[in-house]
Amino acid sequence: MMLGRKRYFAGTLVFATTLVCSVGTTESQKAMPRDQASIESILSAQQKAWNDGNVEGFMKGYWHSEELTFSGSNGVSRGFEAVRERYHRNYPDRQTMGKLDFSGLEFHFLGKDGALVLGRWHLTREKGDVGGVFSLVFQRFPEGWKIIHDHTSLVAASDSK
Amino acid sequence: MMLGRKRYFAGTLVFATTLVCSVGTTESQKAMPRDQASIESILSAQQKAWNDGNVEGFMKGYWHSEELTFSGSNGVSRGFEAVRERYHRNYPDRQTMGKLDFSGLEFHFLGKDGALVLGRWHLTREKGDVGGVFSLVFQRFPEGWKIIHDHTSLVAASDSK
Repeated sequence: MMLGRKRYFAGTLVFATTLVCSVGTTESQKAMPRDQASIESILSAQQKAWNDGNVEGFMKGYWHSEELTFSGSNGVSRGFEAVRERYHRNYPDRQTMGKLDFSGLEFHFLGKDGALVLGRWHLTREKGDVGGVFSLVFQRFPEGWKIIHDHTSLVAASDSK
Repeated sequence: MMLGRKRYFAGTLVFATTLVCSVGTTESQKAMPRDQASIESILSAQQKAWNDGNVEGFMKGYWHSEELTFSGSNGVSRGFEAVRERYHRNYPDRQTMGKLDFSGLEFHFLGKDGALVLGRWHLTREKGDVGGVFSLVFQRFPEGWKIIHDHTSLVAASDSK
C-alpha cells in the first residue's frame, strides 16, 4: 500500500515535471499565429501613423533603447534618438513622406521571443515614388513586441515590383 | 523511516525537476560566449574561402534551404541556389572578388537558437574598393549555426569608415 502510494506520488511528480517542462514549447507553438497578428498590428499602426504625418507615432514600433540599430546605405544609425532623427531629417514634410504601404510580409520566428519579418515598402508621392525592401528583427518584451533592428534598402523601381 | 525515504525520494525528484527545467536558461546563458565564438569562426571561414576565390566554401555559412533569403538593393534573392547564383554573377572572377574583410561584429542573441549579427564588409580591389554593412540572422540547427537571412548594403566610401 505504501509502495502504491509512493508510485502514485512519483507518477504525479513526473507528470507535473513533464507538464512544467513542456509548457515553453507548447505555448510558443500556439503563440505564433497570435504573435504574427500582434506584429502585423504594430506594422499597420506604423503605416497609419506615417500616413497621418506622425513620425512620433511611427517610432512606437521601435525598441526605445540605445541598442536599437537601423542599417541602410548610410551605414548604421545607433539608438532610438538617432533613428528618430534620421526619419525627421530624411522626411521633413508630408510631401516627402508621401503615402506608405507595407506589403509582402514574411515571418520567421526564432524561439518564442524573436522574429525576423521581411517585407516591401512603397511611398506614393507627387515628387516621385520610392520603395524597396526591409528586414525587421522583432523581440518580445514585457510590454510587447518591438523592432530591435531595421535594415532597409531602396530598390530601383523596375526591381521592386 | 518510510516517511524519511519518501521525503528523500520526493526531494530528489524536485531537485531533478528544477535541474531539468532550468537547463534551458542556464545553458543558453553559458552557451552565448561559445555560440559567439562558433559564429565568429563561421564568418572567419567565409572570409578565408572568399579570399581563396572559393565561392562554394563561402556558401557553407548559409542555410542550405529554399527558405534562405538575401536582401539588398536588388530586392530579395530566395533560396540557397539563387543566393549562390547571385554571388557567382556579381563576382565572376578573383579580381572582382578582391580581398574581403569583415569587421565591427556585434551580436544580439534571440533565445538560445537565434542571433542577429551586424558587421561591416570591405573588398580591397585594384579596380576600386567597395564596402558596406550587413545584418545576418543566424539560427542554430543540429549541424550548427547557419545564416538564414542576409541583408547587405553598399555604403559610399566616405560613410563606411
